Amino acid sequence: MRDRKWGIALFSSFPKAIKFFDTTLRDGEQTPGVSLTPEKKLRIAESLDKIGVSAMEAGFAAASEGELDAIKLIAEAGLRADVYSMARGVTNDIDAVLKTGAKGVHLVIPSSDLHLQYKLKKTRAEVLKITENTTQYAKDHGLVVELSAEDATRSEIDFLAQMFKAGVDAGADRLCPCDTVGVLIPEQTAELYTQLKKRLPNVPLSVHCHDDFGLAVANSIIALQNGADQAHVTMNGLGERAGNASLEELAVVLKAQYKLELPIKTELIYETSRLVSRITDFPLQPNKSIVGENAFVHESGMHTHGILSNPSTYEPFKPEMIGRTRRIAAGKHSGSTGIRASLVEMGLEPTDGQVKEIFLRVKSIGDKGKRVADADLQAIAEVVMGLPPVRPITLEEITVVTGNKVTSTASVRLNLNGETLTEAATGVGPVDAAITAIKKAVGIVEPIQLENYSVKAITGGTNAVTEVAVRLSKGDRKATAAGVNEDIVIASVEAMISGMNVLMTNYNKNKK
Amino acid sequence: MRDRKWGIALFSSFPKAIKFFDTTLRDGEQTPGVSLTPEKKLRIAESLDKIGVSAMEAGFAAASEGELDAIKLIAEAGLRADVYSMARGVTNDIDAVLKTGAKGVHLVIPSSDLHLQYKLKKTRAEVLKITENTTQYAKDHGLVVELSAEDATRSEIDFLAQMFKAGVDAGADRLCPCDTVGVLIPEQTAELYTQLKKRLPNVPLSVHCHDDFGLAVANSIIALQNGADQAHVTMNGLGERAGNASLEELAVVLKAQYKLELPIKTELIYETSRLVSRITDFPLQPNKSIVGENAFVHESGMHTHGILSNPSTYEPFKPEMIGRTRRIAAGKHSGSTGIRASLVEMGLEPTDGQVKEIFLRVKSIGDKGKRVADADLQAIAEVVMGLPPVRPITLEEITVVTGNKVTSTASVRLNLNGETLTEAATGVGPVDAAITAIKKAVGIVEPIQLENYSVKAITGGTNAVTEVAVRLSKGDRKATAAGVNEDIVIASVEAMISGMNVLMTNYNKNKK
Repeated sequence: MRDRKWGIALFSSFPKAIKFFDTTLRDGEQTPGVSLTPEKKLRIAESLDKIGVSAMEAGFAAASEGELDAIKLIAEAGLRADVYSMARGVTNDIDAVLKTGAKGVHLVIPSSDLHLQYKLKKTRAEVLKITENTTQYAKDHGLVVELSAEDATRSEIDFLAQMFKAGVDAGADRLCPCDTVGVLIPEQTAELYTQLKKRLPNVPLSVHCHDDFGLAVANSIIALQNGADQAHVTMNGLGERAGNASLEELAVVLKAQYKLELPIKTELIYETSRLVSRITDFPLQPNKSIVGENAFVHESGMHTHGILSNPSTYEPFKPEMIGRTRRIAAGKHSGSTGIRASLVEMGLEPTDGQVKEIFLRVKSIGDKGKRVADADLQAIAEVVMGLPPVRPITLEEITVVTGNKVTSTASVRLNLNGETLTEAATGVGPVDAAITAIKKAVGIVEPIQLENYSVKAITGGTNAVTEVAVRLSKGDRKATAAGVNEDIVIASVEAMISGMNVLMTNYNKNKK
Repeated sequence: MRDRKWGIALFSSFPKAIKFFDTTLRDGEQTPGVSLTPEKKLRIAESLDKIGVSAMEAGFAAASEGELDAIKLIAEAGLRADVYSMARGVTNDIDAVLKTGAKGVHLVIPSSDLHLQYKLKKTRAEVLKITENTTQYAKDHGLVVELSAEDATRSEIDFLAQMFKAGVDAGADRLCPCDTVGVLIPEQTAELYTQLKKRLPNVPLSVHCHDDFGLAVANSIIALQNGADQAHVTMNGLGERAGNASLEELAVVLKAQYKLELPIKTELIYETSRLVSRITDFPLQPNKSIVGENAFVHESGMHTHGILSNPSTYEPFKPEMIGRTRRIAAGKHSGSTGIRASLVEMGLEPTDGQVKEIFLRVKSIGDKGKRVADADLQAIAEVVMGLPPVRPITLEEITVVTGNKVTSTASVRLNLNGETLTEAATGVGPVDAAITAIKKAVGIVEPIQLENYSVKAITGGTNAVTEVAVRLSKGDRKATAAGVNEDIVIASVEAMISGMNVLMTNYNKNKK
């Protein structure tokens, strides 16, 4: 299909109802490095069910006993969504599916000459026979059959149609020409679905895209405009290589930009994304569309200025639509409007002149390549506004020892409002020992809780800068703070003390 | 433009030459949390120049003194690419650009009523005047002018064209209707460029997309097919919110799938991506298209089986095209073919029965939700194949001390092939000290390099389990290993020693 010239319109219209066939638990779980226990799969399945997918592929039953158990667990969970298992075109695979109690099988059989020759080592005639026989076998055993042609997008279209026809004649309920290797471009997607719809007008079509060139969502949209009515998706775009078309991007663009009614509860997207990221232990980059940390964070002056006046100036849709909130961050690119908003939040009431000066200093820190946390902003504001710097706690000394033959132990000497406190503690590691020692020392005076401790993924080398973030609470007041150091212990201690200081400061006694 | 029905063909044809206007250093650097010193900006600029971008926006001169210095440094570096600075529609901003010696100005003026009303607080007539005056001012001072309409994609098309015309009459060299908030869908992109080309047939057009809905690359392609000849891009898709259209995705799809000649040296993409990720301290998720860690990693049985027979079965293009290599990983979804390939790589020659048993054990570990590194695979193989476990290095003792008043110091005692080695080293933190001590101790005998050290994000508490992964090399042999412990120092040391043991084991002395 590579050499054709495309000249057709890229879309006609969307189907009345669009269905989501989620494959987070199968193609998504095939992500190198991801592997889930049956219990973890069930938790994800429940949250996908809640969000409104029509069907979910819970795994590949023949892959291992654990997989089979997981699919069984999910099939028996009484979910609203239909549960599928993948199978190759062999009856053994279908037998494994039958043991799970899944309602349907996602039957995947290669259709490209490349796959036939190098992987399957079968002729086209043999593949047609396999398609017919295995579809028939699955139908005879009561399974709904979603028949996928693997590597369909590099297949000869006549053979692809022939193979699909063999499947349909044997009872396949639905067809999916998989873009297994993510090679589709929009024109080819339109042409492919137009052709298939012409040859097989009465069979529902699905679309299954991979994001190798960053086009998975665009191609899914175009397929839905040209004859498909179901999209295979994964949460967070998990999947082989660059991953699959992501549920969150496809659902939100169809709803927000194409104004379509969807079965997906988009307001659950953010929490579902976070759940999946946590359970699969798979991080998202901050600039991931829709669910990345930065999707609703505004730092640059031009942008925060607009956002504070009217959020839609710099947001494509309201964060509430996907169950999240926006945040204004201070940094190198901040403008004075954003800085003022953050200071007011802290209980400060700076004059225009003061805001301007604070703004200049924040910028100068940014120019040095540093990030500006709330605690830094507070420190700058104190200097500029002539407020006495309030740092109830200062760290005088900390020493930590650890190893495979010693118990991690920290000693700490703090100054708390002029008084010296000395403490020691052991822990499961050097950071735990250090933080425990500080909590013990300060806890006598102030009951501060460490609610959350997190470290950004460290990549590169052992001398990489480590970024620690903490969330602390004292009664109903909360504070976040960060520490940055090449030494993870020092970064953690800095974050902890900096957050404690914010909580122990009250600029405006009239405000809570 | 929201309510129009679109019925036109989505593309006509690409221009003869496509230019890349890189804005990694301006829109990319506006990413919340990213801020670069002038020296770091220069390093990125040099690598962007090498890769072949036509122009680069080095910053926003009026934003701060550091920004101005950075742009000046880059403008004076004698790069092949044209250097631009951003400016808003005020002469002060253009004066700042003039101080840098940049060749051009990226003049950004809002065109949507939303931005006029809520951000700029100006009338349309005033904006036309501003466009005319500031363009004129920039041209009078010898700057090349790339005139961008901000939020163009939510602007009334007649006013947008009018504003562009005012700019062109004042001498603007090129126009860009920015999709500032990432709201474009493919149909609108085609329509927008078709309209603009009709009204302003003789002025070159750029395209500037954001990835809020995951459509930045698709929209950029469609714009290039409908009248644009230059794309604004950033490396790694850095940028506000979900980021900008990414250089790597756009360049590779145009070259690999549309078969276009491009000025971009795609073979430098991977190293440039890594350089930018490192300098900006901005991680990429493993499933990021083109440059993510997983883009050329194959784990699942079906896939590795195909890859080992012919890599194009499961790869959309050769990894060499972007300067990287493929990798077969062992894990829950592995098939026996992939497992055998990994074992042969280690110099092992398992029988079919042994491969099957190793394969089952790898799967069973995977079913428990655990990852399988090279070191784990080796350990399993040894047991199954009845080989004596070869662990040239064993750790006898490690002790590390750190703190705010002491230099992080580690002492280590290792047993290397029966001989005791004792070493000590300092480092920037306890992990760095420990790893350096081990490298020093073993380095006398074996020149092993630590190619990558990474720690998975830690969330929860200070006693959370920490997972460290390392990739080591010795000559052209590589090995991955992992360490898991509540103490990050011990986890790191375990990973390091376990990886070193893989590299120092040679089961088959006849093979290299």
